This record gives sequence, structure tokens and C-alpha cells, in this order.
Amino acid sequence: MLKDSIQIDRIIKNALEEDLGPGDLTTDAIIGPDIIGKAVLEAREDIILAGLHVFMRVFTILDPKVTFETFYNDGESVPAGKVVCAIKGGMASILKAERTALNLIQRMSGIATITSHYVEKAASGTVKILDTRKTAPGLRMLDKYAVPLGGGYNHRFGLYDAILIKDNHIAVAGGIRKAIEAARRKTPHGIKIEVEVEDLKGVNEALEARADIILLDNMPPDQLKKAVKLVAGRALLEASGGITIENIKEIAATGVDRISVGALTHSVRAMDLGLEISRL
Amino acid sequence: MLKDSIQIDRIIKNALEEDLGPGDLTTDAIIGPDIIGKAVLEAREDIILAGLHVFMRVFTILDPKVTFETFYNDGESVPAGKVVCAIKGGMASILKAERTALNLIQRMSGIATITSHYVEKAASGTVKILDTRKTAPGLRMLDKYAVPLGGGYNHRFGLYDAILIKDNHIAVAGGIRKAIEAARRKTPHGIKIEVEVEDLKGVNEALEARADIILLDNMPPDQLKKAVKLVAGRALLEASGGITIENIKEIAATGVDRISVGALTHSVRAMDLGLEISRL
Amino acid sequence: MLKDSIQIDRIIKNALEEDLGPGDLTTDAIIGPDIIGKAVLEAREDIILAGLHVFMRVFTILDPKVTFETFYNDGESVPAGKVVCAIKGGMASILKAERTALNLIQRMSGIATITSHYVEKAASGTVKILDTRKTAPGLRMLDKYAVPLGGGYNHRFGLYDAILIKDNHIAVAGGIRKAIEAARRKTPHGIKIEVEVEDLKGVNEALEARADIILLDNMPPDQLKKAVKLVAGRALLEASGGITIENIKEIAATGVDRISVGALTHSVRAMDLGLEISRL
Amino acid sequence: MLKDSIQIDRIIKNALEEDLGPGDLTTDAIIGPDIIGKAVLEAREDIILAGLHVFMRVFTILDPKVTFETFYNDGESVPAGKVVCAIKGGMASILKAERTALNLIQRMSGIATITSHYVEKAASGTVKILDTRKTAPGLRMLDKYAVPLGGGYNHRFGLYDAILIKDNHIAVAGGIRKAIEAARRKTPHGIKIEVEVEDLKGVNEALEARADIILLDNMPPDQLKKAVKLVAGRALLEASGGITIENIKEIAATGVDRISVGALTHSVRAMDLGLEISRL
Amino acid sequence: MLKDSIQIDRIIKNALEEDLGPGDLTTDAIIGPDIIGKAVLEAREDIILAGLHVFMRVFTILDPKVTFETFYNDGESVPAGKVVCAIKGGMASILKAERTALNLIQRMSGIATITSHYVEKAASGTVKILDTRKTAPGLRMLDKYAVPLGGGYNHRFGLYDAILIKDNHIAVAGGIRKAIEAARRKTPHGIKIEVEVEDLKGVNEALEARADIILLDNMPPDQLKKAVKLVAGRALLEASGGITIENIKEIAATGVDRISVGALTHSVRAMDLGLEISRL
Amino acid sequence: MLKDSIQIDRIIKNALEEDLGPGDLTTDAIIGPDIIGKAVLEAREDIILAGLHVFMRVFTILDPKVTFETFYNDGESVPAGKVVCAIKGGMASILKAERTALNLIQRMSGIATITSHYVEKAASGTVKILDTRKTAPGLRMLDKYAVPLGGGYNHRFGLYDAILIKDNHIAVAGGIRKAIEAARRKTPHGIKIEVEVEDLKGVNEALEARADIILLDNMPPDQLKKAVKLVAGRALLEASGGITIENIKEIAATGVDRISVGALTHSVRAMDLGLEISRL
Repeated sequence: MLKDSIQIDRIIKNALEEDLGPGDLTTDAIIGPDIIGKAVLEAREDIILAGLHVFMRVFTILDPKVTFETFYNDGESVPAGKVVCAIKGGMASILKAERTALNLIQRMSGIATITSHYVEKAASGTVKILDTRKTAPGLRMLDKYAVPLGGGYNHRFGLYDAILIKDNHIAVAGGIRKAIEAARRKTPHGIKIEVEVEDLKGVNEALEARADIILLDNMPPDQLKKAVKLVAGRALLEASGGITIENIKEIAATGVDRISVGALTHSVRAMDLGLEISRL
Repeated sequence: MLKDSIQIDRIIKNALEEDLGPGDLTTDAIIGPDIIGKAVLEAREDIILAGLHVFMRVFTILDPKVTFETFYNDGESVPAGKVVCAIKGGMASILKAERTALNLIQRMSGIATITSHYVEKAASGTVKILDTRKTAPGLRMLDKYAVPLGGGYNHRFGLYDAILIKDNHIAVAGGIRKAIEAARRKTPHGIKIEVEVEDLKGVNEALEARADIILLDNMPPDQLKKAVKLVAGRALLEASGGITIENIKEIAATGVDRISVGALTHSVRAMDLGLEISRL
Repeated sequence: MLKDSIQIDRIIKNALEEDLGPGDLTTDAIIGPDIIGKAVLEAREDIILAGLHVFMRVFTILDPKVTFETFYNDGESVPAGKVVCAIKGGMASILKAERTALNLIQRMSGIATITSHYVEKAASGTVKILDTRKTAPGLRMLDKYAVPLGGGYNHRFGLYDAILIKDNHIAVAGGIRKAIEAARRKTPHGIKIEVEVEDLKGVNEALEARADIILLDNMPPDQLKKAVKLVAGRALLEASGGITIENIKEIAATGVDRISVGALTHSVRAMDLGLEISRL
Repeated sequence: MLKDSIQIDRIIKNALEEDLGPGDLTTDAIIGPDIIGKAVLEAREDIILAGLHVFMRVFTILDPKVTFETFYNDGESVPAGKVVCAIKGGMASILKAERTALNLIQRMSGIATITSHYVEKAASGTVKILDTRKTAPGLRMLDKYAVPLGGGYNHRFGLYDAILIKDNHIAVAGGIRKAIEAARRKTPHGIKIEVEVEDLKGVNEALEARADIILLDNMPPDQLKKAVKLVAGRALLEASGGITIENIKEIAATGVDRISVGALTHSVRAMDLGLEISRL
Repeated sequence: MLKDSIQIDRIIKNALEEDLGPGDLTTDAIIGPDIIGKAVLEAREDIILAGLHVFMRVFTILDPKVTFETFYNDGESVPAGKVVCAIKGGMASILKAERTALNLIQRMSGIATITSHYVEKAASGTVKILDTRKTAPGLRMLDKYAVPLGGGYNHRFGLYDAILIKDNHIAVAGGIRKAIEAARRKTPHGIKIEVEVEDLKGVNEALEARADIILLDNMPPDQLKKAVKLVAGRALLEASGGITIENIKEIAATGVDRISVGALTHSVRAMDLGLEISRL
Repeated sequence: MLKDSIQIDRIIKNALEEDLGPGDLTTDAIIGPDIIGKAVLEAREDIILAGLHVFMRVFTILDPKVTFETFYNDGESVPAGKVVCAIKGGMASILKAERTALNLIQRMSGIATITSHYVEKAASGTVKILDTRKTAPGLRMLDKYAVPLGGGYNHRFGLYDAILIKDNHIAVAGGIRKAIEAARRKTPHGIKIEVEVEDLKGVNEALEARADIILLDNMPPDQLKKAVKLVAGRALLEASGGITIENIKEIAATGVDRISVGALTHSVRAMDLGLEISRL
């Protein structure tokens, strides 16, 4: 997904231009084109690594002659103090790419790491932790790439690759059954139908209309348990709304199939990964 | 800056396409073009508002007929529970724009709000709290726009609008003086020269070479105080590195002119702003 | 889908630039900006109309002052000789947009019309006629939009919105079961899993691995019937490969749930729709 | 034209993004980056080959390490069953590029092949068979590239590289002579002036105004013959309108210099070219 | 050409972004959105006006509410001191667009004005003064638009809208005749064939091969006269190379049909047009 | 700045597409892909070289196999008749890139050369000659790159990288002091504040408000001298307006620190650099 992507190259070029504009004034004034440098990317706290190929691609887009030696792969756990990757190439290129490359890998590793915390905390062999569409605008592809590296799963990538019927759709359609039927007539082959409900009555209506997935919005654990019992495997059940690292274990224990967590991507803490650069 | 910007329109279109792809399957299947809706944007926690024009622009790019009534302006404090803005227009347009618009305003308000916390905590009449280049790739313009709304100030926008000489530049140039001289020969008119130093010896060298601004990297408070005394107004002093909400007061008290804080933008917590949509 | 689409505007601008380049030499030399014209869009054969909004958008992108009166909607049957839409505006604008607008609506109506023929011929109340990814590169969104207007259904829009496991995937994975399991671990929530098989043994394996949809590739009708019997509703069955207007009735009669037809979009006959332009 | 074109790369990237979106779900889940595959492109019916370089470029844009061995060149006749080209490279890359590459070469070969049929049928040593602007929006450059490979010639590429005065231009200008004079004042050096007429009176007026080319619109064969006699080599004559494979021989026999045929590009039948992929 | 052009809008947006980047620091800091201003565009030397619509479009792209009153049209002679156009609108918008708009109209008017000087100096009723491809990269469309406003004519817009066979083409083809024949086989309908020659022998060969236009490269006036006599109207003759305002009269007097002048666009002097802005 | 720039590649691709459109008709018809050529770039007048890397990049973007041998570097003085660079590669590629590459290097060298004339004429060891924003729209980065090669310095690159307070800003703000204070509140860290004044009273106000730079607009030399005396090093002084090669020495002699000259870029004379191409 990441190595051959035309979209990722566009994200990176866009980010580089944003930072470089008409040029790196400082480096262009001081660092000649023949100065060669090296750098090591270090984890300065324990992380789940995500975005190493994106990180390296920033350098090679700017300067195809930069080379790398990697010591970890995406998805691996990197302890604080370990070197993730060594870089060699034009000092000017390294300095120009540094900030953009770090901004990307720090965010992506932040997402993978927090996801792994939610997954561990859920402590369930069967429930899947899902992301949401609450991503940084323009970076969804990268945000979504990081989630499975932390053990999570992707919910839909956008409005175009799943049907998710919400309260307003239901209100306009005139009920859950009517909304599902309208959607089914237009749903592309290969796409499941999910419907958001707020209570057990909604669960029943969704079941009757043969929804593939039922999203249980902001329901308390006891209600979730009842829904699980009621559905008995006839549809997938997704719990959503107000999920935190504190309550995810309790939610997982209700037996729902999926738990979607906005916090995986909407409030990302950048992981502390740093670049030590020196002249060769 | 935000109302007439060609760049912002590009960011928004890019974000909308990322979410909409070839179409909103659910809404296109269920909500007819004649259904009119309304919505209110509510603050669900206390925030400093940032990005209201960007939020509204998402809707009008998708559908120029959507109209708005606004109750707060960017930079104002909005208490939890208050309505920021009311929206009226095609229900389908509102539903399609909702997530993208929220993602933007939640992030921008998150930046303005956390900035205001740092500014308050610094509790200094003179020190300026600065942002950094640790922004979400592709969104720097919006991230940087939000900082002054929270009472902060912008550091450079990129590598192109300031000279900031760092350790590697100094090493290659062969010392602080030589690096500053090399930079001065190429610095565009209107751009100041800033140099990063690690100790008081560096401060002295930077002063002798007539740096406009001296960045004091990761210095402890007592060293910062000595630097302030030593410089005595002959250059601006910026403290940087490891600044947190816990230690900013102590740093500010050293008398430095500027404190730059990566956390304003690199680990943004999305503010809880929600949209209540209903049919008209 | 079509009225608010940023993607469609890009397709149209691209097409206009392709035709206009640095300018319409003839019209710019002869037709002054004050000459007003009118035009009617006529069907010159019986068609299912598709793309009327796209057609009109070509004119308004070039000249927002052009106005329209429409007599048919997308999806309606228009008999030969009937006027679909009347246009009024700058003569130069009408002449410049004419060819691009016609090329689009002629192709889209061609797709809707041929789809309706396949649907009628299938003469089945339950089978759904699906399109494929055999579309004109760059125009998939429009090609796919036209299919449901003719009574068909959309298969996946691209490689990103469905899992479709083919023979090479199976060979690399080491069997149908293993391929499905590998896919399931990575499939985004909301996406079904479809697997292509070539015989009844494959059908059985797919069923055991709980595929949502089984694509029966190039199977003869008697085999299709056996597959229908064997599956007995436990998965959706899609027949594919070598479907023509001549054999679709026989295929439909086998009881499969879906029939996908490359010919809906890969060999489109442009419908004869013409513009009669005159000076006002 | 095709090997060094910036435009073609843009068409291909656009088509790949349309198909790949945020990623090939199936292949990314199943096919590891180290799996190497091979493929052969076979003609499954008799074709005139067109677009081989475009076909190969799709793979190399996605993955520069893919290699090719070619057995035919563009413009050559390939009998059913023959291998056009062999491909070797990452299996994932081959699978991801397959559909886009085939869609392009199938369409282009369809155009070259149908063109060759019209040319053969015309059975004239002197008449040139021309294409029109009735091409797939966004693909004109490729459509136009295929026509000469089938023995045809290109009419203008767009509104910008020829003067073609039509009925509405004449009406606004106030007659053929006035229209030609207006155009001549603005025509770029190197561009011929063509005028569309409907009868012999128009031919005479066009001759008097020294048109370089006269387009005879929808004239019956006997009228075309009279026009040929009347003009006697003083201008090029182009027959246009309602040309089919059935009547082209009769039209060619009238002695006109050019015959333009919308059907070469507006209703393309995709040639049956297929890819046989296997693991190496 | 200029009012409905998608290309021109792109040129303008590109130019505005180049100047505005992430924002006009000064104006955004000082001029509030409610301040209304007016401005007049004055000619400060005698000019032929070119680019007024482009000038105005810069403002309206930035701010659709800006309004204009115009006192001259493109192609008209404006004496020093006269007001070309009055502008009213947001002061901030006027200040932000000012430089970009002036840069464009000053260059375009410079081209129209110098062209008019060459045309007057040629003092010939029949010779046409042509531009070349020596334009500012990215601005060819605007440069070429200005030339006819000064009384000149456009040579080809690029390599795509005329055949111009030069010495290297001739050398590779193996002679003028062979080059022309090769070109004729591929020349799109509507495009003339021009060939560059260096002496009368070349003129003869070009005539024999029925070139439409013969470019006489760097020939002295007496040679040009001989070529005119020799050709006697059988082809158009274009003189090119080393044409200056000093020698154009002598060149024109030789009787050639066209004279192409690189200096019209390769060394443009910006006309002195200024904006007087004040608060309303 | 030029070797690793994403922006420069975009400028070049844009320029190539502008010239090539759908293809070089002449070269594609005549020059086969196997013909190899060589070329030398010669200075045909004395120049300061600028843009050699941009020149070469045009060829390699079109054809990565083209190779170069260079004999001069940017910023060096090249006497008339000397060879700057030798080129080897596909003849077709060389012919297609020729005009675009020359247009760029001729303009850039024109800027460097005229700048060197102004610098020499100023004959001052301390004054810096600055460019302005009067550049060719879309080419500012290249125009600005050439100025230092001729010995000049860059003024701001756009409205985004310096504060320059002009008369209208002052009028709206209500005086110089108020304008400077408003700007200071919003000025990004690292950006100086410059204010334009028209007389000595203005100079005094600017000094009091602690402007970093004072622009003395259109002041006669005696006034400039008085300003220099008055300021006595407390701010940088920039003279601007009406500077010519004739009066620059007198202006420089007044003691101002900077002189900005619009003519460096707004009325560029293309240097005579030519390409001699031949078949290998």
C-alpha cells in the first residue's frame, strides 16, 4: 500500500513544499552540495513503529541518492533508545527533509502506539478495535495505515466505501426498515449495510431489515449486553461513542464484535522520535 | 488570511475528496436533493474558537446555497453548551460536509485552546509563546492560524521565511561566526538571523556575530537567567526544548523574550464540538 | 452524487481544456461576446437519458450565465425526436462547450441504454445486472453513474472498496481458505469478501471459508445451476465472463444472484443526441 | 509522441488513482512484496495493435522495476492467439496495474482496428480517412494516436489547431465570405481555413473566399461528385456526416480528398486482449 | 479567449499563490475586512493596452465583490496620464492583488506596444509581423494574446499546431523533399507545412516539394528579394532571424509575406502602468 | 535551491506542456527514436551565466538519458563565443526541449547580467542592490535565483516573508506608529518590519516606532543623504523608485544601505545564448 502509492507521493510532495516554499534559506546559504552527512533515527520512548517507508520516501523524493539501513519494520515494538534506521546522503538533503519526515513518522507511530494500548486494554480475543473518520484532513490514508500496525482494524475509509445509516438518514427515510431498503437498492456490490441505533427497539428493527452491521451508539454496558444476547450472531455489533482507555475493557466484556474509537486518530500524541545528524 | 485564500480552498477540496471519493453512498441513496435541513454547531467543552470560517467554507464549497448565522468569532472563548453557529441548507450537503468541517474546526480550536493554556500559565506580560514547524503535514497554514487566536505568536512558517542556524549548520560552517556570516550574505532583505546555541559560550559568539535572535536549546532555568543577563537586550532570546505546561512558568520567569512550544501543534487534542442536525 | 461533486468538475475542466487548449480559434475570430444564442438538445434515437447534469455543467463551468430548461430527467426513457433540454446564453460559450458536453452525455446515455437492454433481456425479477471495472480510464465515476439509470447495479468502484480474491491471489495464498483468512484479517469493516472460483469444488471451499460472495467465472449454465443448488442461499452468487445480450437470459435463469457484464462499459456505443443551435 | 509525454503520464496516474484509490485491498492483504510474477499479454482476436507503450508505462509508473519483452510494435497486425508482450516483476504490481493497462490498450487497439477496417473498405489509394473530436473526454490524445496506426489520419486535435467554420459561425458573420475573412485576420500562421457547406452554392462561395478546405456536410454521393468536379483541385474536399462501414466505399468513390468518421472513436469496441499472470 | 479561459484562471491563481504564499503579512495585520477602497489604473506612458480582462480577473479571483469601471479596451492606444480603469472593493483585496495584476498588464501591454512599433516601422500594407515561441515560460498564452492587439499576427502557439521543418529535421530525413514527405504523412488535417531554408537552392527544393510556407532564415535583403521573385506566390515566404526595429523596414520592402520577430516577446519592457489606491 | 526543488520541476513541466501540447508534430513525424544527437550551448554575447541547472533539467525531465558536460557554473562570466555546456542524447528529445530550455536560461542570464551592471555601476563597497516583486508571474523563484548570481540581493519573495508597510497601510492604521504597532503584534518571529516613508518627518516617526528598515520612496539624493545622517545606523535605509543605470551611482553615494531596482526583473532582455545541434 505504501510503497507504490501515487497518493502518498502527493501527500509528501505537498508537505515538503509547505515547509520548503521557495527554498531552505539557512541550509542553501551554508551547506554546500558536496557535504555528505549521516543520521540515525532514534526512538526516545517505547513505540509501535509506523510510517518508516513514508519517512524514507520524504528523503528520496527530495534526493534519490540518499540511502538507508533499517533495523525495525513497521508494526514492531521499538524500545526507547533504539535506532530505527540509519541514513546517509547529502547533508543539505537530510536537513531539508528532516522536519517533514519526522512530523509524519511521529504522528503515524503515535496512532499505532495508542491503538496498541486500546487493544491491550480491551483484553479480548475476539473484539476488533476500529478507527473512525476523525482523522487529520488530508492524511487519512496515513492515519488509517497506522491503525492495523497497532493491532486495530479499519472502519470505512470515507463516505464511499460503506453504507452507514445514521439518525438523520432514518428520520428522512421514515424509519430504519425504509432507510435500509433505500440503501440496499443503491449499495454497490461488495459493500455491507450498517445502521446506527440507539436502543434495543432499534436493534430489533435493524435485524428485521437484515442489516449486516448494527452500530450501538452510546449505549451503556448493560444495554450492550442485552443487544448481544438479542442479536445472537445474526448481525455484527459495533459499540461506539465515548470510548476511552478507561472504559474499553468493560465495553469489550459485553461481547460486542467491534468497538470504534475516535481517539485513535483525532487527538494523536506525536511519539518522540528524533534524528541525530552529523557530518561524514 | 482565511477568507481570500486560494491555499485554504485547496486544503478543503482535498479533504472533501478524501472523504467523499466517488460519492456518499448512504446519503446519495436516501436523502433527496429537495430535503432541507438545519444544524447547530455546539461547543461541548470550554474552548477558544478557531477555524469558524474554514468550517463554513467546507459547506459552501460543496454547496454555495448553504447559509449561516454565527454567534461567536474566531479567538473568542466559547463555554461548553453554547451554540457557535447555525446552518441551513440542503440536508444532503450538510451531511456530506459534516465530518470534514468538524475535523478541521476541532483541530484548530484544539490548538487555540491549548495555546491559551500555555499563555495563561506563563503568566508573563512580556514573553511571547511561539509555535514550531511540528504541525500536521499539509495543514500548517491552519495550525499556524490558530496559534495567535489563543494568544500565541507564530515562529517561522517554513524553511523559507527565516534564518535559523542549527548545530549542523554551525559544524559545517566552522563555527557560529562563520555560519552567521555565510547566512548574512544570502539572507533576503527583511529576514532576521537566528542562531541556536547550547551554552553561554555560544551566546557570546552569537552576540559578537550580531545575531538578531539567539535560540537557547534545552538550557536549564538558571542558565537561561544567566543568558538573559549576559545579552542585556542586545538580541532577542528564545528558549526552546522540553517545554511543558508544568515548567513554562519557571521558564518564563527567567526573562527570556520568547518560548517556543512544539506541543501547541504536534499533539493536538481535538476539541469536542458537535453538530446537531435536523430536518427543516 | 453528480451535483456536488468536486471530481466531476475536475473531469469536465480537464475535458474542456483538452478541447479548447489555448482557445477556440474559429469562434474567437468570428463570434463576438454579445451574440446570444439558444440551442436544443434532441434525442435522435430512443435512449435512456444519463448525464444531463454533467452535460449542463460543461456549459456553466465555461460560462455561469448560460441557462437551461429541462424536459426529461436522468433515467427516463426519451423517444427519438424529443427535446431533452433547451439552452440559452452566449453563442460563443454554447459553441465552445458543445462537443465536450455531447461527448459526455452521448457516452453516458449509451451506457444507461445498453444496460436497460441487458436488464430487460435477463427478464428476471431477482437477478441484478452488474457493471465491471472495464470503464474508460478517467471516466469511471460517470460510467458507473449511468449503470443504475439503466436498471443495473454497481460492482466495486475500484480495487479499494471490495475484496475480490482471484486465481493469482489464491495461488499465492495457498488455497481459497487461506486467501480468505488473509483477506479477512485486513478487510476494512463494511466490506464484503468475494472469491472467484472455477468449479464446484471451489464453491465448496469458498462456502467453508464463509465467503460473502462467490464469483463463478466462465461456468456453463448447467454448472451455474448446480452451484445455486449447492449454495442454497449461504452466499451470494455472481456469474461472470462471456456474458452477451444473447446468452444473458439463459444465465439469469440459472438462479444466480448477480451477473456482471463488461460490455456495459467497455464497448459503449455513443447515443445519437444532437444540439441544434441558433442565434437569438 | 508517447514515450516522452508528460500528458500521458498524467492520464495514466489519474487512471491508476481512480482504480487504486487508497489501495488494492485484496492484493495488499494477500500478496507480499517479495512475490515475483510474470504475465503475457495475448491477443484473443485479430487486432491492429495500438498503445503498447502506454500499456507498459502503467506498470512502470507503479513499479519501475517491472521489465518487458515485446513481440509486436504499435501498428502491426496481431493474429488471435499471439503473445504481444511478456512482463516480469512484483506480482502485486502486476495485479494492481492489470485492469488499467488493459482498459487503455483494449480501447486504443479497438480504434486502430476499426480504422483499418474503414480504410480497407474505402479501397481508395488517395482518400484519407480522418477522425473527429468525438473522443472519450480526457483520452483524446490516446484516441488520436491510435487512428494513424490503423491507416487513418488525424483531423484537428481540438478547437485550437485548425479553423473550422460551421453554420452558426457563417450565420453570425453574415455569409461564408465574411466568416472566412474574419477568421483569416486572426488565424495563426500555419493553420489552414476550413469551412462547412451544405450545397454547391456554398462550395462556390467557399472557393471564391479561398478556403483551404471545404467540408461537405451530409451531402449525397451525387452531390459530392459534382462538388469534386466543380472544385477541380482548388481546395481540399472533406466529406462528413453519416459515414458508415457500409457506405464509405461509395463516398470514397466520389473523389473527395478526405472522409471524416465519428465512429472511429465515439463508439469504440474494446479489443479482446488478455493478461495471463502466474507466479515465477 | 480571455474571458472564459480555464487556463488563464490557472495562470492567475498560480501567480497569486506565488506572491501571497500563506498570506499577506502586512495587510492581514493592519487592514480590517470592512475597510473599502478604490483605485485607478493609470497609464504613465503612451501604450497600446493589453490584458485588461486579465488584470481585472486577478482581483475577482481573490474577491468576487470587487467592481470595475473601464475607460479603454484592449488594443486601444492609451496616452500617458489617462485612467484605464477604476476599481472599488475591499481595501485588503485591492492591496493583495495589486502587484500580480500590474505585473501581468505591464508585460502584456509592453508586448502590444512594441509590436505596434514594429508594425508601424515595417510600413507595409501587406507584410504580417509574427511573434515566435520565445515567450516567458508559462505565459505564452498571454504573450501571444497581446501580439495581435499591437497589429501583429501569431505564429504557431507551440510545437503542436504547425509543422516547421528545420535544418536538423532536414539532415536526419535526408533532404528537404524527404522531410516534407515524411511530415505530410503525419500532419493533421488543417495544419500547413513550413520548411526553413538558408539559400535559394533550398527555396527551389521546398517549392518542388510543395511546402505551404518557406522560412528564409537569416537571409540578407537582396537574397530575400530573389526568393520573392523566384517563388512568385506559389508559397508564403517568412523572413526570420536578426530582425530589429532598425532593419525591419528594409526587410519588409523585399516583398516577403511574413516577418517573425523574437524581440516582440523575448525581451519585453514592462509598460509603466500604476495603481493609485485610496480609502473610500 | 535549484537542484532539489519540487517547485522548479513544476515550472519546467508546465513550460514543456505549454510548448509540446499533444506532441511535437514535426519531430515526431521525422526524427526516429534511435537517432542520437549532440548539441552545444554557446554564449553569443558576454553574459553572467544563470540557470544552467534549470536548462539541463528541462532535457532530463523529458528524457532521463540525456547527458551533459558543463564548462561554466552559474554566476560565472562567460565571454561571447564560449561553449557553456555540451549535450548528448536522443535527437528528438534535444529538439523538443530546446526552445523551453533556452527561454529559461536566456531570461535568467539576462537578469544576472543586468544585475551585475547595476552592481558595478553603483561602485559601492557597502550598498546592496535588491530586486523587487516585479517579476514574470509564475517565474519569481527563477527570477529571484538569478539576482544574487549577478551580485545583487533578494528583497522579499512575496507578501508572506516580510512586513512592508506602505502609504495605504499607514493611512488606514492612522499613522506610522500605529501601523508598526499593529504589524508587530502579528509579525512572525524572524521577520523584520519595514516601513515606507516619503520625507524626513516620516523617517523620524519610523525611527521612534523602532522600524527595522525604512524605505525611502522616490526621494532625491540630497534628501537621502539627510536621511542617512538622521538615522545614523539605527535602522537600515532602502532607497527605491525611479532607479536607473544612469542614476544608481549617485544614489549609492548617498550612503543608503540598500537600493531596490524593479528593472532587474520587470524588463528583462534575453541574453543571446544559442544551441548548435547536430547528429551524432
